[in-house]
Amino acid sequence: MDWDTATQRSVMLVQDLGESGVLHLVQRFCPPEVVGNDAAVCAVRAGYALAVTADMLVDDVHFSDRTTSAYDVGWRSIAANLSDLAAMAATPIGVTISLGLPPTTPVSWLEGLYSGVVDCLQVGGFDVPIVGGDVCSSRVRTVSIAAFGEVKPGAEIRRDRARAGDVIVMTGLHGLSRMGLGLLLEPDREEWRSIAVVDRERAIAAHQRPQPRLDLVRPLQAWQENRQDSSRIAGMDSSDGLADAIVQICHASRCGAIVWREALGSLADLGLPASLALDWTLYGGEDFELVLCLPEPLAQELVQLAGHGAAIIGEITESPEITVLSRDHTDLVRLDRRQGFQHFSAP
Amino acid sequence: MDWDTATQRSVMLVQDLGESGVLHLVQRFCPPEVVGNDAAVCAVRAGYALAVTADMLVDDVHFSDRTTSAYDVGWRSIAANLSDLAAMAATPIGVTISLGLPPTTPVSWLEGLYSGVVDCLQVGGFDVPIVGGDVCSSRVRTVSIAAFGEVKPGAEIRRDRARAGDVIVMTGLHGLSRMGLGLLLEPDREEWRSIAVVDRERAIAAHQRPQPRLDLVRPLQAWQENRQDSSRIAGMDSSDGLADAIVQICHASRCGAIVWREALGSLADLGLPASLALDWTLYGGEDFELVLCLPEPLAQELVQLAGHGAAIIGEITESPEITVLSRDHTDLVRLDRRQGFQHFSAP
Repeated sequence: MDWDTATQRSVMLVQDLGESGVLHLVQRFCPPEVVGNDAAVCAVRAGYALAVTADMLVDDVHFSDRTTSAYDVGWRSIAANLSDLAAMAATPIGVTISLGLPPTTPVSWLEGLYSGVVDCLQVGGFDVPIVGGDVCSSRVRTVSIAAFGEVKPGAEIRRDRARAGDVIVMTGLHGLSRMGLGLLLEPDREEWRSIAVVDRERAIAAHQRPQPRLDLVRPLQAWQENRQDSSRIAGMDSSDGLADAIVQICHASRCGAIVWREALGSLADLGLPASLALDWTLYGGEDFELVLCLPEPLAQELVQLAGHGAAIIGEITESPEITVLSRDHTDLVRLDRRQGFQHFSAP
Repeated sequence: MDWDTATQRSVMLVQDLGESGVLHLVQRFCPPEVVGNDAAVCAVRAGYALAVTADMLVDDVHFSDRTTSAYDVGWRSIAANLSDLAAMAATPIGVTISLGLPPTTPVSWLEGLYSGVVDCLQVGGFDVPIVGGDVCSSRVRTVSIAAFGEVKPGAEIRRDRARAGDVIVMTGLHGLSRMGLGLLLEPDREEWRSIAVVDRERAIAAHQRPQPRLDLVRPLQAWQENRQDSSRIAGMDSSDGLADAIVQICHASRCGAIVWREALGSLADLGLPASLALDWTLYGGEDFELVLCLPEPLAQELVQLAGHGAAIIGEITESPEITVLSRDHTDLVRLDRRQGFQHFSAP
C-alpha cells in the first residue's frame, strides 16, 4: 500500500493534526519529566563516560512502504543505534528522535513508527527512554536518531585492540537478515521452495525486527572493567556484514585473520542454495550481531552466554591476510570489504 | 545562485566524492579520537547529569539558497542547539550532525556548512567537538543535530520555576534577527531607508549569525549550584520569540507577568517604523537570547554580565494575565503565543 496516495479523507493525515497535534502525539511516547524544557536532563553514573552514536534513515533510500511497515522502520532505526552502543559495551541511557514528515503522512504511520521505536527500546530490559527530538515538515520522510549510553572510560570495546592469538566470536548466525529480505522481495522464487515455513519466518523476523545484543552489555562491561590487562576485547557490530566487521577490525588493529568456514554455520542447512549461502553469510549485512576478538577462555564463556548461533569462527593472525579456510584447506576465500549500498553514487 | 542547477562539471558534487569521500571530508572536522568506532566516547564530570536537545533543519522549510548560505545554515543549526543548552545552564560537551544530501549537492556547500558549524562551536570558548553523526543520500538537504551538555542534577534552569515577585530579564535586544531577515528579503523597502548602514549590518548579523548565550552558562551554573533555595532561576531561550518565552514560562509556572514596554528598548530608535518595532520585538523570534525569571538583586548582576541590550523588563505576578504596560499605563497589550510558522499546515 502506498500511503502517499492514500487520499481518501477517511485517513487522518499529519496535516490534519497540525504541528501542536503532532508534538502532542509524539510526547505521549516520552517520560513526562523530559517534556517541557529546552533540553531534557538524564542521569549519568559517576565515573562513567558518555557513548554517542547517530543514524539517519530516509524514505526510498533505507526503507519504503513496499517492504517496510512503519513499525519496522521504527524498530530498525532504534535497533541500529542500540547495536552500536552494545558494540561499545555501553549501557543505553536514552535516544532522541527527529522526524521530517510530508504533511500528507498518515497519522497511523507516525503512530506505527513510535510503536516500533518504543518496543525496540525495551530489548534487553533497559527500558531506554526517548529524551528529546524534533518534528518538522519535509518533502521526504526522514528519521534521525541519536543514542547515548554510559561506559567506564577505557572499558569501551574498540576496533583497534585485536591481537594475534585472539579468537574471533560472532554472537549469532549471519546472513539470516539478507535471507529474510530475499524472501520478502521474491517470496515465490523457485530456488528456495525447500525452505521450511518456520525458517522463512525466522529469516523474515531477523530482517524486520533485528535484536540488538543489549543482553550482552552487562557481561561485556564486567569483563572490560575488571581486567588487569585492560581493553582486551576488540570488536564492533556486524550491521554492514560479517566480512566487513572482520576486515575493519583487522585494518584498525593492523593484523589479519583466518576464519574457519565450517564454524560459520550454513544457511544451506535451512534450504538456501549453496551458491547464495556463504555469500549472504559473509556479506548480507544488517544482522546486528557483535563480532568480538578476545582470548579463547573468555570467548568460550561468551559463546555460552550469547546462545544459539554464536560461535568461535576463527583467529587473529600477525600476517595481514584475511582468509576463509575450509577444514581440509582445499577451499580458500580471501575476504574484502565488498562495497554494499553506496550513498551518493551518480544515477 | 541555485546550486541544484549548477550542472557545469567544473563544480565538484557530492556524487563525485562518493560515500567514502564524503565521510572523509566530514571526519576532518571531528577530533581524531571520535572517529573509527561504532560510537564516540566523551567525558562527563562526576556528579553531573546529561542535558540533551535535538533539532532538524530542512531545505525549503528552514533555509534556502536564496536567503541562507551554507555557512549560515551550519552556524544557525548549531546556534539553535547550543542556545537550548545555555537556556538550561548546561555546559556543552558535544554535538552529532546527521546529513541527508542529494547526490548533486556541491561539495563546496558541504564544506561551507561544516565551516559554519565549527565556527559556531567556538562561541563562548567551549570549543565543542563534533562527536558523531551520519551522512546519507536524500532527495532533500536535511541537517539533523543533537547536542549534549552537562549540568548538576537539580541545577538546570527550568520553565516551571518562576514565582510571583521575580523580575524578568532578557539578556539582549529582541527583534533584531527579524529586522535582519526583513532587510535581506526587501533591502530597498522605502519605509526603512532611514536605517543606518551600521544598524543594517548589525541586524543582518543577528539574523545570520545569532550568538547563543554560552557566555552566561558558567555564572548561571554557579548561581544555581550554590543557592540554598535551589532551582530558583526559571527561564528558557527566546528562539520562538520574546512573547512566546514569557507566555511559556508563565504557563509552566502557573503565574502571570507584567512587562514594561519602555524597558524593552525600541527598534524604532534604529529607524524601524513604529508600526513594526514592537511587533518584531515581541514576536520576531530567532534572537536566541535567554529570558530568565529571578530575584531582583541577582537580576541586576545578570544584566551587568549579559551586556548591551540586556534589561530587567518586567515582573512575575500571581494573577494569570500577561500584559505589556507602558509607563503611563495608557497603553496595554495582552500577550499571547501568536502562531509563528506552523509545520504540517495543509497547503
